Amino acid sequence: MQITQFLRQAITLNPNRIATICGDRQRTWSDLASRIPRVAAALHGLSVSDGAYVAVLAMNSDRYVELFYAVPWAGGCFAPMNVRWSAAENAHALRDCGAVVLCVDDAFADQGAALAAMFPGMSLIHIGDSATPEGMLRYETLAADTAPMPDAGRGGSDSYAVFYTGGTTGLPKGVAFSHQALCQASVAYLAMLPETEDLSFAYVGGFFHFSAANAALYITLAGGTHVVLPKFDPVLMMQAIAAHRVTNAVMVPTMVTIMLNHPEFDRYDLTSLRTLVYGGSPMPEQLMAEATARLPGWRFWQIYGMTETGGFATMLRWREHRFDGPTAHRIRSCGQPAPGVEVRIVGADGHEVPRGAMGEIVMRSDYQMSGYLNQPAQTAATLRDGWVFSGDAGRMDAHGYLYVEDRVKDMIVTGGENVFSVEVERALFSHPAVMQAAVIGIPSEAWGEAVHAIVVPRPGAAVTEADLIAHCRRLIGGYKCPKSITFQPDPLPVGPGGKVKKAALRAPFWIGQERRI
Amino acid sequence: MQITQFLRQAITLNPNRIATICGDRQRTWSDLASRIPRVAAALHGLSVSDGAYVAVLAMNSDRYVELFYAVPWAGGCFAPMNVRWSAAENAHALRDCGAVVLCVDDAFADQGAALAAMFPGMSLIHIGDSATPEGMLRYETLAADTAPMPDAGRGGSDSYAVFYTGGTTGLPKGVAFSHQALCQASVAYLAMLPETEDLSFAYVGGFFHFSAANAALYITLAGGTHVVLPKFDPVLMMQAIAAHRVTNAVMVPTMVTIMLNHPEFDRYDLTSLRTLVYGGSPMPEQLMAEATARLPGWRFWQIYGMTETGGFATMLRWREHRFDGPTAHRIRSCGQPAPGVEVRIVGADGHEVPRGAMGEIVMRSDYQMSGYLNQPAQTAATLRDGWVFSGDAGRMDAHGYLYVEDRVKDMIVTGGENVFSVEVERALFSHPAVMQAAVIGIPSEAWGEAVHAIVVPRPGAAVTEADLIAHCRRLIGGYKCPKSITFQPDPLPVGPGGKVKKAALRAPFWIGQERRI
Repeated sequence: MQITQFLRQAITLNPNRIATICGDRQRTWSDLASRIPRVAAALHGLSVSDGAYVAVLAMNSDRYVELFYAVPWAGGCFAPMNVRWSAAENAHALRDCGAVVLCVDDAFADQGAALAAMFPGMSLIHIGDSATPEGMLRYETLAADTAPMPDAGRGGSDSYAVFYTGGTTGLPKGVAFSHQALCQASVAYLAMLPETEDLSFAYVGGFFHFSAANAALYITLAGGTHVVLPKFDPVLMMQAIAAHRVTNAVMVPTMVTIMLNHPEFDRYDLTSLRTLVYGGSPMPEQLMAEATARLPGWRFWQIYGMTETGGFATMLRWREHRFDGPTAHRIRSCGQPAPGVEVRIVGADGHEVPRGAMGEIVMRSDYQMSGYLNQPAQTAATLRDGWVFSGDAGRMDAHGYLYVEDRVKDMIVTGGENVFSVEVERALFSHPAVMQAAVIGIPSEAWGEAVHAIVVPRPGAAVTEADLIAHCRRLIGGYKCPKSITFQPDPLPVGPGGKVKKAALRAPFWIGQERRI
Repeated sequence: MQITQFLRQAITLNPNRIATICGDRQRTWSDLASRIPRVAAALHGLSVSDGAYVAVLAMNSDRYVELFYAVPWAGGCFAPMNVRWSAAENAHALRDCGAVVLCVDDAFADQGAALAAMFPGMSLIHIGDSATPEGMLRYETLAADTAPMPDAGRGGSDSYAVFYTGGTTGLPKGVAFSHQALCQASVAYLAMLPETEDLSFAYVGGFFHFSAANAALYITLAGGTHVVLPKFDPVLMMQAIAAHRVTNAVMVPTMVTIMLNHPEFDRYDLTSLRTLVYGGSPMPEQLMAEATARLPGWRFWQIYGMTETGGFATMLRWREHRFDGPTAHRIRSCGQPAPGVEVRIVGADGHEVPRGAMGEIVMRSDYQMSGYLNQPAQTAATLRDGWVFSGDAGRMDAHGYLYVEDRVKDMIVTGGENVFSVEVERALFSHPAVMQAAVIGIPSEAWGEAVHAIVVPRPGAAVTEADLIAHCRRLIGGYKCPKSITFQPDPLPVGPGGKVKKAALRAPFWIGQERRI
């Protein structure tokens, strides 16, 4: 299978359908059939062949969609850059993949020029709409003036693209994919969706992230329409849905809330939207109730996955979005494995734990990465025996629903047993005197790590360490209960996503010692 | 990807759902989770490992469904046998794949015993419900008494199964598939279907044929239910749909007609059936109108493909089943390429012809066969440069709809030009004096082949060779017109499917000469 075959499929299925919409610009699949082999030929003339990398540092646009196909058509590999990264991080990524071409739009023209100065052999293509800066090639000129080339024919196990992630635990990692992995992932994505005909997808997330990159591929495979917005803006989004009869989108629940609460919400006909995929956080009951009441045709689908798994691994279907009845607990899960994905929960020894028990979530499919570019040690740590080790802790119920509970690095190993902080925290929270609680592992000569809790009591509440430990003992296994508790009046430190920064809480206990992970 | 992963997926998704229904017997996916590793272990004990073949000669049953998974779980390859074949043909197939085990049911116990005498090293397993004949092992005893084994772990490019086809042009050919081909085909099949949740599939065709074998795989991948009927019977089928809330089936249009015309049709609640896949012939307008009127929830999907392409290659969707309006002509097509399948029309030189022109239909996908077992020359003739040459002649319109028109072997090559007999026959049929007409290629020193027509005139009509040739010249290109015509009063010879037996018509002209193909 070849990624470029998706383009041929779209051209075969729907030659006259609008392929890309970007602002006032619309192009059909027939237009793209003419443009992409020309852009590819221009890239080929800039040494793009034999898997050389073409990086793109730009906001979303129709030209960006074309590059998903023009790059492999030329014989190259595709490297979308994170628009939120610093120039230093992007320089690292460009060096890592050895990009021979960098495409930038108006927003990144300056950073592009700065990066070009660092990589003298790298060509710069301007894919923006403003005047092309000096020293850059103009994309539209290349698309118009270059004679088309035949498809270079990359496919199968050949590399297709690298997506850069990480940064929290060090330098960015390039997650590399073959053609066959992302081709199969796209077919599986269509198999997972409730409808696959007449799709029209509105993008609000950047193409460097899999939530958008997946769609850039499967929407083409389905012969649909790419409606490209530069970023999330509630009015732009509502205008796009209404104007272009958008059927599909990926949004985090917060974006849906912003739209629903927008004063102009009722001005737009948003009934064409059928499938709204979200991820990252569970669907709040209030939001679901409001969305269902105001737009009864909307269907929510949650997906869970990581870049390393090809963007998705499990799905919570629309009909599983229930807040009452015997299966209401499933709304807190991220659903069941997608077609062709195996999901297991494993213990520290790498073996599957009994169904229902907590452990690390591992996933295996043909859709996953081939590895981290140029990082064999990191690859070996994450990809073990064909399984992607997620670093997420969770459990799977008897019916195959996956619950993500914690990060594995926040797990405590005490006396050979794994204790998940979230379980202990739940026990603590159930005590009326506890306002905030964080459970961490601290050094213990006897146990390796000991379970330690940091508790912010409710103002005026009188509670002792012994009280809380006794409370926990009534709810969870003895080895999971805190061995010690410190109380503090100040709120716990939280990160940008609202999560308690446990690494910061752990640090003072581990000075001079090395903690596992 | 592994075929056995489909079983694990079904067990994960729907442990308590009914997996197989066969007569009064129902088993859940949890039951199969316990049974299949035991059956596999028993097979393993009978030398099924390292890709050794297990043949099955039986009517459809729930045990047959289990064998789709138990055989690869044991480490073997699966070889379903055509129940319509003679013992000699089946003996050829068993010799070809070197089967170490043959499974037979009650209907084939005698043939099984006869075949076992020819292959002394081959074990015989009885999967029927009657008393197990002497010399055979009882399937249910093996499933109950054998300790389970772990999955042998075959997958990826390992062989999974061989399906025997052909016979019209000589000995049967074994069409061999890898695990990854049929795994990907199954995901693509789900992507092609309009609905993939809560599937319940009723089988009326034999598992040795891809129309049923596809479903034996994708229904498991979707965690659905296999409702197994021994053969097509309208009352059994209607009872099964009503009793088991069947959602999906594959039937040829004739079977639907038989059901609609059955006196007991209105006695059954058949509203659960949503997706009715058919193939082999276009949907007749009258049937479609009647079915739609009486069962408005039924949705027809046509597929076209061959065993060699993994069973499917194109699809005509429900919404394309229109007998009026500007796209009504599409009802005579077999639709557009399925996700991940490339379809082209090529000339005798193997190059793509302009859109709309006739040529041979060739198809390429990751779902297709790896080749014909033990037949490198046949494989090379059919699988060229990765494309399956179908032997079907047809054309594709500007919107990617495929029309199958003829068999390539009925094509005439005259003076270097390809002439499709069906086009010439259409011209002849349009003359009022013509009742039947068949166009064939006959030897010609000047042209290689010459276009020759055999015409049965309407009783009482007076028409000459020159009249008809002149008539054709007004309708089609000169090189396509018959060079000669013979008239005969007797009807043309037809085969079981109602098609004119052109080989028989050609034979007298080619005595002592070798014809291309």
